[in-house]
Amino acid sequence: MKHLASLAFLAPISLAWSLPAAAQEAEEPATPTSVIAAAGADEWIAIAPEDLLVMDLAPDARGNARRVVIQLMPPPFSQPWVANIRTLAAAHWWDGTSVNRVQDNYVTQWGDVTEAKPLPEGVVSPMAEYTVQWCNYHVCPALPPVGNLGRRLTSEHGWNSFVEGWPIGELEGRSGAWPIHCYGAVGVGRNMAPDTGTGAELYTIIGQPQRHMDRNLAVVGRVIEGMEHLSSLPRGHGELGFYTEEEADLRVPILSVRLGSELASASSSEAVGQQESTPRYEYLDTAGQSFARYVAVRANRNDAFYTVPAGGVDVCSVQVPVRRAE
Amino acid sequence: MKHLASLAFLAPISLAWSLPAAAQEAEEPATPTSVIAAAGADEWIAIAPEDLLVMDLAPDARGNARRVVIQLMPPPFSQPWVANIRTLAAAHWWDGTSVNRVQDNYVTQWGDVTEAKPLPEGVVSPMAEYTVQWCNYHVCPALPPVGNLGRRLTSEHGWNSFVEGWPIGELEGRSGAWPIHCYGAVGVGRNMAPDTGTGAELYTIIGQPQRHMDRNLAVVGRVIEGMEHLSSLPRGHGELGFYTEEEADLRVPILSVRLGSELASASSSEAVGQQESTPRYEYLDTAGQSFARYVAVRANRNDAFYTVPAGGVDVCSVQVPVRRAE
Repeated sequence: MKHLASLAFLAPISLAWSLPAAAQEAEEPATPTSVIAAAGADEWIAIAPEDLLVMDLAPDARGNARRVVIQLMPPPFSQPWVANIRTLAAAHWWDGTSVNRVQDNYVTQWGDVTEAKPLPEGVVSPMAEYTVQWCNYHVCPALPPVGNLGRRLTSEHGWNSFVEGWPIGELEGRSGAWPIHCYGAVGVGRNMAPDTGTGAELYTIIGQPQRHMDRNLAVVGRVIEGMEHLSSLPRGHGELGFYTEEEADLRVPILSVRLGSELASASSSEAVGQQESTPRYEYLDTAGQSFARYVAVRANRNDAFYTVPAGGVDVCSVQVPVRRAE
Repeated sequence: MKHLASLAFLAPISLAWSLPAAAQEAEEPATPTSVIAAAGADEWIAIAPEDLLVMDLAPDARGNARRVVIQLMPPPFSQPWVANIRTLAAAHWWDGTSVNRVQDNYVTQWGDVTEAKPLPEGVVSPMAEYTVQWCNYHVCPALPPVGNLGRRLTSEHGWNSFVEGWPIGELEGRSGAWPIHCYGAVGVGRNMAPDTGTGAELYTIIGQPQRHMDRNLAVVGRVIEGMEHLSSLPRGHGELGFYTEEEADLRVPILSVRLGSELASASSSEAVGQQESTPRYEYLDTAGQSFARYVAVRANRNDAFYTVPAGGVDVCSVQVPVRRAE
């Protein structure tokens, strides 16, 4: 058996970032991969180009391009910050800024290292809440249950579910709902409260998600492609993982950040770095049958490799499948 | 406020890997850092050199040494694999092997890429369980509660707590207990069940911990220093994140792996790579008052930065504080 020792170690699980398209044979036990592969075309929902933020970092040491694609948070969540981010991208504000902080098991953060670059007019820290009054938007439903898991989609607080493709938390009593900081979530750096941040300074989660960040910082999106270009960077050794002046050359230059809609318009292609256009993406409908089955299989792995099902799954262990559209 | 935008982003939380020693002023709200700093010397428990595994990787591109220190799992958990690992380290078996797999948001894995290197005599996949019959060892107690959190130390299954410095899960009814795969946990790669792995092929968790791995793979330790040398490596692009042949130069050579007790004995210092000895470490007593307070503060951040306490905390978000001994 030894020759299989490494390759057989685990069935692939990082499905959200790269989806193997191969169909599984019917007689094999269901795995997250096989459930997603079997989902119908009508269960995939297109992501609009205007909801994509495309960040091109400077090439790596081997000259490979490094593109990070972020899906922006839809209403009703975090919209004042998302509006700022659209303004900043349209102004090409991030061009020439850099990745400045990489704290192990926590966050990678990028923005203007000089902290002196003027912001576009109107981009200010909003007087806004991280938790939205859910009933204002959705006729006060409970968050939808997923499959037969019930409360086994665990969390520290209240109820968790997926709404229109996003992991969402809800207080007991339905008094408010908020997007959850999972791996790859993109949030807004800020000063001490009551500052809320503008969106010019962004971070993404590169380790164990910390639920104490929820409801204290604005989640404005998630990385749907190129996460490795942020998660595998050398860690910083200054306070909070910022690169020190001695490590200043580790700061990765940001060549450009564009909305997908700007890239999609042919006239703007000269403004882009090494890549001319952005592909289209789609996510698996979180209200559909395949997603419910995917969650159930995630919670109860029972195949040739996993023989003891967990019986439950953390909401952040259920990455919503996202893939490139054909 | 803009000049503070980045530095004020967050109070440090990755305490397990590098502990700031500065005492906090008494009038400030308690933070995880301040609680740990205030713990008495009698609350720190020394880690024996024979329970340390010291792995020296080849220096990085800048010539910096890369040392990873692993604390091995104590009884009653995973002891057949830990015994194999001691044998492998004593035989210097890992010297000349490499890091071969880095799968984003999942694991970094190391061992013999040829899968042909003979194992020392007696090192075989044990016929052993990942879950131990807790009552055989501890007169059948329930896992100890931590502070006033009760079941808010959440998990998908049963009860979670900390036993002698380690995060442990337990089935309802106390029929078994097991070590939990948290960030930095070190586990044993294996073939398809019923293979259990030998311990020659090891991995560590570099992203969102996946509880479906618990009770299906042996957890044999955790990284207590140098985690960044495994978590920040370039991701592999072969199946399961293995480096492809085209990426073969990304495999990081392992110069040596030694038990701390071998390093501690002066006569063996010639066998070591670029670092001659290993420092001593200690962990915060998880049965003590300071640890209980640390967990409570983690679950209820309420300071100048965090204004909405979560009210609970995942067991894997509570990294047990480990520091170098004076």
